[in-house]
Amino acid sequence: MRAVQYRTVGSEPEVVEIPTPEPGPGQVRLKVTAAGLCHSDSFVMSLPEGAYELPMTLGHEGAGVVDALGSGVTGVVPGESVAVYGAWGCGVCHACARGAENYCARAAELGIKPPGLGAPGALAEYLIVDDVRHLVPLGDLDPVGAVSLTDAGLTPYHAIVSSLGALPAGSTAVVIGAGGLGHIGIQILRAISGATVIALDVSEEKLKLAREVGAHRALHSDDSAVAAIRQLTGGVGAQAVFDFVGNASTLEIARASVAMDGVIQIVGIGGAVLPTGFFSTPMGATVRAPYWGTRSELIDVLGLARSGAIHVETERFTLDEAPEAYRRLHEGTLRGRAVVVP
Amino acid sequence: MRAVQYRTVGSEPEVVEIPTPEPGPGQVRLKVTAAGLCHSDSFVMSLPEGAYELPMTLGHEGAGVVDALGSGVTGVVPGESVAVYGAWGCGVCHACARGAENYCARAAELGIKPPGLGAPGALAEYLIVDDVRHLVPLGDLDPVGAVSLTDAGLTPYHAIVSSLGALPAGSTAVVIGAGGLGHIGIQILRAISGATVIALDVSEEKLKLAREVGAHRALHSDDSAVAAIRQLTGGVGAQAVFDFVGNASTLEIARASVAMDGVIQIVGIGGAVLPTGFFSTPMGATVRAPYWGTRSELIDVLGLARSGAIHVETERFTLDEAPEAYRRLHEGTLRGRAVVVP
Amino acid sequence: MRAVQYRTVGSEPEVVEIPTPEPGPGQVRLKVTAAGLCHSDSFVMSLPEGAYELPMTLGHEGAGVVDALGSGVTGVVPGESVAVYGAWGCGVCHACARGAENYCARAAELGIKPPGLGAPGALAEYLIVDDVRHLVPLGDLDPVGAVSLTDAGLTPYHAIVSSLGALPAGSTAVVIGAGGLGHIGIQILRAISGATVIALDVSEEKLKLAREVGAHRALHSDDSAVAAIRQLTGGVGAQAVFDFVGNASTLEIARASVAMDGVIQIVGIGGAVLPTGFFSTPMGATVRAPYWGTRSELIDVLGLARSGAIHVETERFTLDEAPEAYRRLHEGTLRGRAVVVP
Amino acid sequence: MRAVQYRTVGSEPEVVEIPTPEPGPGQVRLKVTAAGLCHSDSFVMSLPEGAYELPMTLGHEGAGVVDALGSGVTGVVPGESVAVYGAWGCGVCHACARGAENYCARAAELGIKPPGLGAPGALAEYLIVDDVRHLVPLGDLDPVGAVSLTDAGLTPYHAIVSSLGALPAGSTAVVIGAGGLGHIGIQILRAISGATVIALDVSEEKLKLAREVGAHRALHSDDSAVAAIRQLTGGVGAQAVFDFVGNASTLEIARASVAMDGVIQIVGIGGAVLPTGFFSTPMGATVRAPYWGTRSELIDVLGLARSGAIHVETERFTLDEAPEAYRRLHEGTLRGRAVVVP
Repeated sequence: MRAVQYRTVGSEPEVVEIPTPEPGPGQVRLKVTAAGLCHSDSFVMSLPEGAYELPMTLGHEGAGVVDALGSGVTGVVPGESVAVYGAWGCGVCHACARGAENYCARAAELGIKPPGLGAPGALAEYLIVDDVRHLVPLGDLDPVGAVSLTDAGLTPYHAIVSSLGALPAGSTAVVIGAGGLGHIGIQILRAISGATVIALDVSEEKLKLAREVGAHRALHSDDSAVAAIRQLTGGVGAQAVFDFVGNASTLEIARASVAMDGVIQIVGIGGAVLPTGFFSTPMGATVRAPYWGTRSELIDVLGLARSGAIHVETERFTLDEAPEAYRRLHEGTLRGRAVVVP
Repeated sequence: MRAVQYRTVGSEPEVVEIPTPEPGPGQVRLKVTAAGLCHSDSFVMSLPEGAYELPMTLGHEGAGVVDALGSGVTGVVPGESVAVYGAWGCGVCHACARGAENYCARAAELGIKPPGLGAPGALAEYLIVDDVRHLVPLGDLDPVGAVSLTDAGLTPYHAIVSSLGALPAGSTAVVIGAGGLGHIGIQILRAISGATVIALDVSEEKLKLAREVGAHRALHSDDSAVAAIRQLTGGVGAQAVFDFVGNASTLEIARASVAMDGVIQIVGIGGAVLPTGFFSTPMGATVRAPYWGTRSELIDVLGLARSGAIHVETERFTLDEAPEAYRRLHEGTLRGRAVVVP
Repeated sequence: MRAVQYRTVGSEPEVVEIPTPEPGPGQVRLKVTAAGLCHSDSFVMSLPEGAYELPMTLGHEGAGVVDALGSGVTGVVPGESVAVYGAWGCGVCHACARGAENYCARAAELGIKPPGLGAPGALAEYLIVDDVRHLVPLGDLDPVGAVSLTDAGLTPYHAIVSSLGALPAGSTAVVIGAGGLGHIGIQILRAISGATVIALDVSEEKLKLAREVGAHRALHSDDSAVAAIRQLTGGVGAQAVFDFVGNASTLEIARASVAMDGVIQIVGIGGAVLPTGFFSTPMGATVRAPYWGTRSELIDVLGLARSGAIHVETERFTLDEAPEAYRRLHEGTLRGRAVVVP
Repeated sequence: MRAVQYRTVGSEPEVVEIPTPEPGPGQVRLKVTAAGLCHSDSFVMSLPEGAYELPMTLGHEGAGVVDALGSGVTGVVPGESVAVYGAWGCGVCHACARGAENYCARAAELGIKPPGLGAPGALAEYLIVDDVRHLVPLGDLDPVGAVSLTDAGLTPYHAIVSSLGALPAGSTAVVIGAGGLGHIGIQILRAISGATVIALDVSEEKLKLAREVGAHRALHSDDSAVAAIRQLTGGVGAQAVFDFVGNASTLEIARASVAMDGVIQIVGIGGAVLPTGFFSTPMGATVRAPYWGTRSELIDVLGLARSGAIHVETERFTLDEAPEAYRRLHEGTLRGRAVVVP
């Protein structure tokens, strides 16, 4: 089959021919219907030699049609359209037992890795999923429109859900960065909270997108943003700030605009950290860098898509165009999310 | 001043002239700008002699302009437009200390009663509020549009907020009764949850209203409703059912349509109770009859109105028309909520 | 192998010889080290013909040593000592995805049943467990002391954990029935909450046990109990009542002693239901009949045993004595929990 | 009356004679029965000129007997023994409406300050409390034993309660610093959670105290502590770390020992901040510097003392000895907490 692989540190991903895999006991083979590209792929490809075993088939956002079942598999039937939960864990530790495989205590020790981030990924004609519990039925949801939700929807959803206690009706949420994750985060906030949503970005085009997908306000992400947020909240600040960029200047905006007892979720891997404590952040404010999301949260997010509450802006590419799509992603010239349809 | 009083058990409320009250230490006098009528007024007027001390000025939904301050009052200034939090408690017990004065442990013992339900109510030209903590600034919100939120908005909000744990994105909520409280409940569910909302009513007009205010589905409230809810939820049932009627047949619909581990909130005082337990309700399902709401929840609800997420259908009456408005309420011929503007 | 089976409606369980089962793909065979007896076994054996397919090997509380692995099983090794999570579900629905397989939405439809309650149970020399996710490592915990925790510990833990929001430090919890589940419930309340614990029972011996395991007060379960609870709580009532009996008189005690905004959990299957609503239960009080517990909660409960915070009173029997143990259970002459060691 | 005042920046507190204050409308005068000393007093006295208006009567931990009521005060009677909730707020903003006056949005703007931290404090013969809602009845609790709970009990309780979601039974909590707050924090963790408690300190005497008050383990607070915590938790780390010191080395221990999705609460004002984010803290870990506690939490903490679950180690001083007590506090030679009894 054809697959998009990262083969050599420092070089671009390549489209190659590799053997079509067979599902072992308990495993499921999918014929891939859609695979999403993500900034974290670029992050992975920026790491020094040894971080990942190469060559590695990319793609941690995947959807497909059930194609072949390993022995002992029940609960899905060939032909079913499914999305892949990618944050694979051991399945039995405390975190996994409550579905939070994204925080599996034993994955590192056992060498369990997500598809596309160690295990063979979804940017291929076929994908092996290790266990039926990592599949969520798509029903009649379009795989191309839905596939990005497995990461770009699930990650903001997880961050937002764990902040809902701070976001009662009438509160204010700030979203920094209205790109791939941010433009979905805005929609999720509108769908599941009564908060007023203020979006920040450096790009006029993305501020326009932010408004289109439901932000009450969209402001240029610079020094004036903090004063504007304070003014819009009667001086109190925002009860939650979701930073989908995560560099030094966005974290400083987050620090300066969050309310007492509020929440900052650092979602973007922009290279910076936020000094937290009495001499830096407001009293009672929480700072956290969440990772991906839980199994039931993925079901939730797909439910939001099904009821029409959220949708993903996508640009569609073939497998052969995947290297080009990564280039566009790197340049920041994509509108929304890149999806490869093999 | 003029006031609408319930004076004799069994007779209609009357418009009478009574002395204008003076605020004591710590109290605030409001010049009433709006007062809402409520089904629970009718319930009160159906009770036998002795339930309430008569005559009693009615009106537990109130808004006004700060008019005179008793000694020691700080935090509001004359001329400020405010709404009244009506579930007055002692202010110091555990429930009150977290703002849940609606569950004050000592109100009964201390003889503390809500305005319009024991203390002199808002259906008058002036209203005495016992403590500044029972006021919430309205800012530029229209008092006539907002006053009903102090009960008809706060009560469903309290029921819904305490059920949110059962209502993740993609879940299903059923609202039984799309009248005064129900039509606001539908809007609150849409504003603060990602649940699909199914409204039930016996009146075609109210089903139409339900759809207009955001219900995904509006169904006739009869035997077929349960089957329809089961079918729409893939057999699982609704994660939460809010019964704003509370009679025997609506509670049976609630019982039969709730999911395992789901929630039934009985908000309407329709005379019935729901047998709860292993031999009646689904495993893990919770049944509860909530009462009004907390202080911070009233701030939240007014915040929703401010951001435009909810609005109340109202019909407007003068003080002199109040008895007529109660008749219309009793007949069920009001669209939304009756508001008296003195 | 030898097994204790319920073979004919209305007759006693029998010890019989049946073939030793082989694990299929994904399954695990345990050599049983301990199996607990439960009142719900008696309830099952009181049901009319057709409720369960007979003969049925009993025992839904099980522990064992991993003995043989079906194909594709990873995560456990032969010789490991484990407890069995019995509330088997589909593993992939929303409830299962968060580990709440006890509320699996599809178990009934798919014919999935717990061991000992449909599937072959633990009262045998060997037990087949359908998936490795239903095993929890015991480490050096004694299987005989720990096996009852898989139901008689997990069930009260689940009820208590879902009530913790109502049980801040300084609140009051009432436990009705200090038998198999109740005496563990008392210990769990002492271990994970700052509530004052009042135990009620009709047996002096069980009241003595209640005091020994940590109840602050132990009272005779009759009409005087309600007055005593009101007096001990300054008139407020108990923030949570756990009824491990569930008959009409205990539910009436629960109803009359719970505080406003409190919680009643009906755990015992004593045949009664509790009328819930404005005209029966206090304002805001929640009534619920929970079922068993979640996967992560079983890990929690075993953690409590490991740190010494809880222990189970047990009487030990051989497989051949199991019918006699069921008789003793039925008579109510066991102290704590009956455990069969094959 | 006599009072202990901080009069000149850089000098020691002095015992002086000042006029006995009269309660204004809504205020309550207490005859002080006990007042606690706190490290934050020392912090205040280390700040440069202008941070506080001087002279200032010290003491933010206070208890007393109701002595005189201003006009309009109801709910307490002269002679009643009460503790003072010190984190005074406006009483009406969203935070205050839910009792979280410690995060009042308007206190700074309105110039509202806690007693002893701006307003006249409890280190005097009489204390003015601004509102009856800031009093909690002590009943027959000894004021000398209980007064420190108003800060040294409430502050750790608030930090712990807001971390309970991360601390299920069987989890691990680390307490860094077993001094005034820490030794109460250990008791609270034992009383309201099923977590295993590991205490760290640099002093052998405080490690001994930690064990006496319930820590499962007490370890020297150095480089070896992190490895020990990892080993005791099977490599997972601690689900919550409470740092009652807050300097650079303790925060580094916190960072290195917390589990994924765990919580670090920085309670001690030791001068340091913790870099938080993907490149520093574990995935999903939350970092927060809480401040004091809420009104209902103070009721909870006093409830724990009443049931005997916690007690404070105290050394008792007269008003005249207060300057000496501050010296001892500064030297770190107190066992537990210093309490002044006028």
